[in-house]
Parts: sequence; structure tokens; C-alpha cells
Amino acid sequence: MADTKADLDRVLATVDADLDASLERLFALLAIPSISTDPAYKAECRRAGQWLVEDLEGLGFTAKLNETPGHPVVTARSEGGAPRRVMFYGHYDVQPVDPLELWNTPPFEAQLVTAEDGRKRIVARGSADDKGQIMTFIEACRAWKKVAGALPVEVTLMLEGEEESGSLNLPPFVAANREALAADLALVCDTGMWDRETPAITVSLRGLMHEEIVVHCADRDLHSGYYGGAAQNPLHVIAKIIADVHDADGRVTIPGFYDNVRETPDEVKQQWAGLGMTAENFLGPIGLSVPSGEKDRMLIELVSSRPTFEVNGMWGGYTGAGSKTVIPSIATAKISCRLVADQDPLHVRDVVRAFIKARIPADCRVEFRGGEGSRAVAVSHDSPDLGKAAQALADEWGKAPFTIGAGGSIPIVGHFKKQLGQDSLLVGFSLDDDRIHSPNEKYDLTSFHKGIRSWARILHALAN
Amino acid sequence: MADTKADLDRVLATVDADLDASLERLFALLAIPSISTDPAYKAECRRAGQWLVEDLEGLGFTAKLNETPGHPVVTARSEGGAPRRVMFYGHYDVQPVDPLELWNTPPFEAQLVTAEDGRKRIVARGSADDKGQIMTFIEACRAWKKVAGALPVEVTLMLEGEEESGSLNLPPFVAANREALAADLALVCDTGMWDRETPAITVSLRGLMHEEIVVHCADRDLHSGYYGGAAQNPLHVIAKIIADVHDADGRVTIPGFYDNVRETPDEVKQQWAGLGMTAENFLGPIGLSVPSGEKDRMLIELVSSRPTFEVNGMWGGYTGAGSKTVIPSIATAKISCRLVADQDPLHVRDVVRAFIKARIPADCRVEFRGGEGSRAVAVSHDSPDLGKAAQALADEWGKAPFTIGAGGSIPIVGHFKKQLGQDSLLVGFSLDDDRIHSPNEKYDLTSFHKGIRSWARILHALAN
Repeated sequence: MADTKADLDRVLATVDADLDASLERLFALLAIPSISTDPAYKAECRRAGQWLVEDLEGLGFTAKLNETPGHPVVTARSEGGAPRRVMFYGHYDVQPVDPLELWNTPPFEAQLVTAEDGRKRIVARGSADDKGQIMTFIEACRAWKKVAGALPVEVTLMLEGEEESGSLNLPPFVAANREALAADLALVCDTGMWDRETPAITVSLRGLMHEEIVVHCADRDLHSGYYGGAAQNPLHVIAKIIADVHDADGRVTIPGFYDNVRETPDEVKQQWAGLGMTAENFLGPIGLSVPSGEKDRMLIELVSSRPTFEVNGMWGGYTGAGSKTVIPSIATAKISCRLVADQDPLHVRDVVRAFIKARIPADCRVEFRGGEGSRAVAVSHDSPDLGKAAQALADEWGKAPFTIGAGGSIPIVGHFKKQLGQDSLLVGFSLDDDRIHSPNEKYDLTSFHKGIRSWARILHALAN
Repeated sequence: MADTKADLDRVLATVDADLDASLERLFALLAIPSISTDPAYKAECRRAGQWLVEDLEGLGFTAKLNETPGHPVVTARSEGGAPRRVMFYGHYDVQPVDPLELWNTPPFEAQLVTAEDGRKRIVARGSADDKGQIMTFIEACRAWKKVAGALPVEVTLMLEGEEESGSLNLPPFVAANREALAADLALVCDTGMWDRETPAITVSLRGLMHEEIVVHCADRDLHSGYYGGAAQNPLHVIAKIIADVHDADGRVTIPGFYDNVRETPDEVKQQWAGLGMTAENFLGPIGLSVPSGEKDRMLIELVSSRPTFEVNGMWGGYTGAGSKTVIPSIATAKISCRLVADQDPLHVRDVVRAFIKARIPADCRVEFRGGEGSRAVAVSHDSPDLGKAAQALADEWGKAPFTIGAGGSIPIVGHFKKQLGQDSLLVGFSLDDDRIHSPNEKYDLTSFHKGIRSWARILHALAN
């Protein structure tokens, strides 16, 4: 097996030389409308999976389409005798394309478009999320195979077809296939760059606990003229609960809410402080200017390394035109908590419920619906693999990657840790303006090209 | 003109003797489906008004149907030379009858039904609200005319056809007909008894100020994974506002909210204390047990003589099935304040708006829609007419009437004071179980019979 520095240089040269062929393959995959949420596209989802199986078999992987109660999962294994194995995760399904009339080009006819600033972009549904990203990895493997005949590390791929519809069948699939998916490390390519010039490694993903809260007061809607001032109003009760959750400094007051929350290491905070995330550049584009969260935290902490409590929906009483002097019998709120570090979703659910119950008047009651959750994912900031990947990215981009926390959640990453014992290395090349989930989704040609080169380097680095 | 005690006795005897004929006339009026909110019944509303004009003309009144942009207003005047004049108000329109399948008998075919407890009830839409009540007054006039040839006091009637649809055209009608409607006192028969044995005079009606509040934060809906913890959530902002409105003792904290609120006289409070309104008997039937309002007030004060602030509707964000981790851009609440005594709706609107504005984050904004209002109506507790009516009711029922405050609002009563300079005497005979606005509306035969006798006595009493 040859994974020397000389090999890497030849691999990178091959990536450059074969870019047009790589693009052709990506365009073929992008042409398949694998919309997982719409039953009408069930056969197309299967066709996208089958396309990947055939492409990976062509690369020498042992690949198959695994049935699930939903769309199939693609798995593929290399067997070349390398000293360690990594497991790559991505998804081949895409979001729906509505509203179609807002697309400038047909969503499943990928185009290479030159933007006004001269940059080339691959425009198609799935270009950035996530077909373009998974093909950066597969093309890197292809170049290694072509140049060296083998990969620097053994690779297992698991490509699902239900990420956009909630990955419902993936956790049981992972649990049932522990042996086949065994590896030292998971690689995930479904995240973004810090900006066009700066690569990023996502070292934490927030977890999520969500819950629907229903406050019941009187057993029927009441006339406010007759009962106003005497009968409990569930809209007042639920407003009081929500208002009590945060203190004047933006801190969550629920006892136990911050249990097990780890402090971000000082050196990471120092690095974050240098990233230049300001209220002006982060909140300005959405019409806001003042961060709403904990006053003693940097903005970047608020959106990545701190837990949150948010109301996502709330309703009750009369919501039509004009006025109706009713005191409703129930009020409802949908809440969600972003979780960090070692927070246990069930513990958070319990302390949230206790906090709410303590605020329900004696003659009223509360009902909880949901209370599901996923743990946050945190990669140790000083793992050797992280350092290797960081160096590989620095070599490619001429700039050290930022290690960032992502505010969102990729619940499956928690399952990799829990079911497979694998830490995840999250590296991706999408940009903030890629319009994922929206019309005219695009992936910069640079993201694709340098993304392939980045993975070629990372595979090399992880072997050494 | 004869209005001696002997005349009254003969009038009451006539009422008793003619009860069947009185019922027949009421049933004829109840047979007309004068549903004012449904344009399909426009002609029927007119027919009900016309029926009343003809009936009143038959009694010697000068009656007419007055056009408005909506349904016509019936007016009628007696001219017999009595020393003073009163103006009686009621309405001939009724609520819709849906759901029709819940009626045990056709809603516009009035029936005299004997209930399980042996009491006789007039069952029909409008029996209690308000055709049965206005006919108690008209039949009392009829008996006086029959016995004495004249009324003890001159009477003007104004019977509208749009009370159930908001009385939109009545205030301008009143303003345009000040001379024709001139009188010493307004009589209103659209309220209820305290209970089956105890008559009541309603001495106050709460006013109303209602408003829709829209809180705007970001200029678009946000993903809570990306912005959660940093971007203002309008659902949190509106919850905080609502929560701040009441302190732990149930008192409204809005500065200026209680300006001009008059304290109920001690003697009235003492009377109220004896009425036996308890949390158990008032809140028990609706599934509650603990009064929610000001802790240092009697329950009866809370629902009649104290101002309130209630949220009637509130909504924002995702309200569908499952969860969606959105931070919405706007949140809305519909609020209403019941007003008492000398509270000015515009002042209350202003202090409420100032309170809300002070709680809007610097980078968010609030929009107010509505802010309309009507003043409360309070009758002096020691007016001579009130005392006369109270004695008349005590003579009829064998029990002194309770002078009560009604929690609801009858805005037109405010216009009588403002436009016509008339205090209102609110006497009615409906009962809590009359199911007004619901299927199987009824009016006890006792309410009708003794209601006629009561008005016969009151007309006599007001002349002396």
C-alpha cells in the first residue's frame, strides 16, 4: 500500500485533471429527482441509491442497497489492508423543489453557471445538500484508487435516503448493523465552510429536546364579560410560564437546565473571539441588531455552545378577524431546547416539565405531548484525528480551519457515538449562500473541486 | 289620568286574566325568524319590526319603522298627558339557530313545555333574548291601557333589529333622533334575575376596550438551530408582556390602569357579601375552583365592579402537527379590558399601549390594531327611580331585588347617557339556565307572567 507524500501529490494532480469527468458523474446523480418526502418519487430515490451502488462497485467497493421500511440505505466497503477504517456518512435524498417557478433553471438539470462575480456554480437541487458533498468524498476515493490502487485508510460508506424526511429508519439500521459499520472514526460531509476562504471543522452539534405543552383551565370556552377577572385564563398561565423561563440577563432560570453543560475551553473561546462574528454581521441581515441571549456570552457561544429554550409555536383562543371576548379553555405551546455537551435530553425534559407543573394553578392542569430528544455531539478539541484533518485542510486552503460549533442538530451523529462508539469528524464545503432547501440551490465549483482535494488529503492524513 | 293603587290592582288582575292572549301574541312574534346576522333573513327581520309597529299602533301608540343602512328600528310614542316620559329599549332580532339538530322542538315554533320539575317554559329562539322580555313591557302597557285608558307615565319605545350583530346603526340613529327619543329615564329589558326567586336591578355594566397587538422581530422566520439563543423570539416578547400585566396578587400592574376606578359603596359591598356567590357555586360548574383575579376582592366584585385585562387569543409560529424548529418573525395577541365606573377607554388604551411599548426590545417593533372601546355604565345607587323600581319589584316578588353589576357590556346604554342624557334602569327576568344563544332557548312562564306584572308595577311606581 502506497500512501506517501509523493502519492498524495499525484492524487491531487489526478483530481485536477479529472475534474470534468467528476462533474459529469455528479450531474448524472443530480439528474435523479430523489425527493424523499414525496411518495411519488419513491422509485427515483431507489434509482439514486442504485446509481451510487453501481458507481461504488466500479471503484472496487463491495456495495449494496439495504432495504428499510422507507427508502433504502447504500452501504459500501473497501478491503485493501490499510491499517485503519473510517465510516463516511452522507445522504442521497433531496428536498422538494417548490415553488418551481422561482427556479431560473430546471432543478434536476444541473448547470455550470458563471455568476456575476465570475465564480462558477453548480446549480441544481441537491448540489450542496448533499449530493455534491458526498461526491467530493467519492471522487477523492476514486483518485486514490486510480493513482495508488488502494485507499490510505479503509472506507465504509453509509448513504441514506431519508435525511430530509427525518432519518426515521436510520437509527434501527445502525443498531442492527454494528459489525458491518465498525470503524475508528465517522466522517460526515453535511456541514459548511466558515466563509469562502476559510475551511471549518464542526466540533459540536447541539442536541434537541422538543415538547408540546397544553394548559387546560375551564372545561369550556367562557364569556369574558361573565367570567373575566374570576376564571383562570390559560393564555395568561402559559405566558407566565414562558416569561419565567428567561431572566433579565437572558439566562434560562429552570433549575437543573444547565446541569452537565461543559464550558468551552479558553483557547477555543479565544479563537472564536477572533472570528469576527458581530451582532451587525450576524443579525443585521435578518433585520435585528441586539443579541437576545445570555448577556455575558459571545454571540458565537449563544448560537453554538450554549443550550437554549425557544417557543416555536403558541396558540389559543380566538384568532380570526375582529374581536371575540372569549376566555379559552386551553392554550398550547410548542417548545424546543437546543442542547450542548453532556446534557441529557430526558433530564432536560424532566426539569422543564417540573418547572412548568410548578406554575400551573391548582384548579388547572397541564398535558405534555412529545418530549423527544437527541443528545448534543461534541468532538474533543484535542483529538489526534482532528489535528490531522485540520492540517490537511490548512494545506489545501492555505488557511487553518476554524473549529466551530454548529447550532443545529444532526441527530444521527449521536447514534454513531452511542451505537458504534465512533467520534465524528464533520467537514463540509457548502457556503452560507448555497440556498439549501430553497430554489436555485447551488454549490460553488471551488467547493466541489477543493472539496475533493481536501478529502484526498484528509484520507492521507488519517493514515499517518 | 288614573294611576291610583286601585288601578294597579285591576291592571294586575287583567294581566293574570289575559295571560293566554299575551302568550298568543308572543308566540306570533317568536314565529318570525328575525336572524339579523344572516342576510337570508333580511325580509323576516323587517316583518318582525312591522309586526311590532302594528301591535303598538293597536295599543294607541304612534309607531313607525325607521330605515337604517341595516335592519329598521321600531319607534313608538304614547301621548296621554302623563307627567313624565320614559324610553324603553329592547331588540327584536335573534341569534342564528345552528346547530339545528340539537333543538328538541323547531326553534321558530314556540311551545309551552312542562319541565321535569313541573315548571312551564316557553321554548323558542328569542324567547328570553329578547322577544319574551320586550313583550313583558308591551303587555304591561296593554293592561294599563285596557284598565285605565292611559299609561301612568308616557312611554317611547325603541326596538332595534341589530343587537345580535353589533348594533352598528343604532348610535347614529340615536344621535339623529334626540328629540323624538327625549325622556327622563331609559328602561332596558335585556338582563336577568339574580335567581328564580330574586329579582335584580343591574346598576352597572362594564365597558370594553379591545386591541390586537402584533410584535415584529426578525424580518423573516428563522431556523432555531442557526439563530436560537441570539435572535429575539416574538413569542417570548409577547409572553413577557402578558405575564407582566398581572402581579402575584392578580392586580393589573399597568400604570394608570386603575385611574378613575370608583370604589363600590360599603353598603353595596355588604349587600353583595350576602348574595352567597362562592367559588364553588360560580366556578364549580365550569370545572374551576380558585378565583384568578385580585386576591383582596370578593368574587362578585371581580366579575362586576372591577376592571380586567384578558387575552382572548394569542398565536405565532408553527401550530401544525409535530415539531418545526422555527423562530417566527411575528406574534399576535388579541386583548380586551372590561372597564368600570369612570374609566375612559381611550385612556386605558393609551396606558396599555405605553406599557407594551416599554417592553418591546430595541430592535423589534409593535403594531396596534383596533383600540376601540365603550365606557362602563353605572347608575347611581341612590337615585329615586331606582328606589321606586326596587319597591315595585319587591312588591311583586315578595323579596327585595338585588342591585347587581353585570360583567358584560351593553354599549348602547352608554349612548343613552351620552346622546340623550338618560340614565338607564336595567330590569330583566331571564335566568342563568335560559340557554340564550344556544339550542333550546327558553323563557320561564313565570318570568313572562311576573315580568309583565313587574313592569305594570314599575310604570305605576315611576309616576308617583
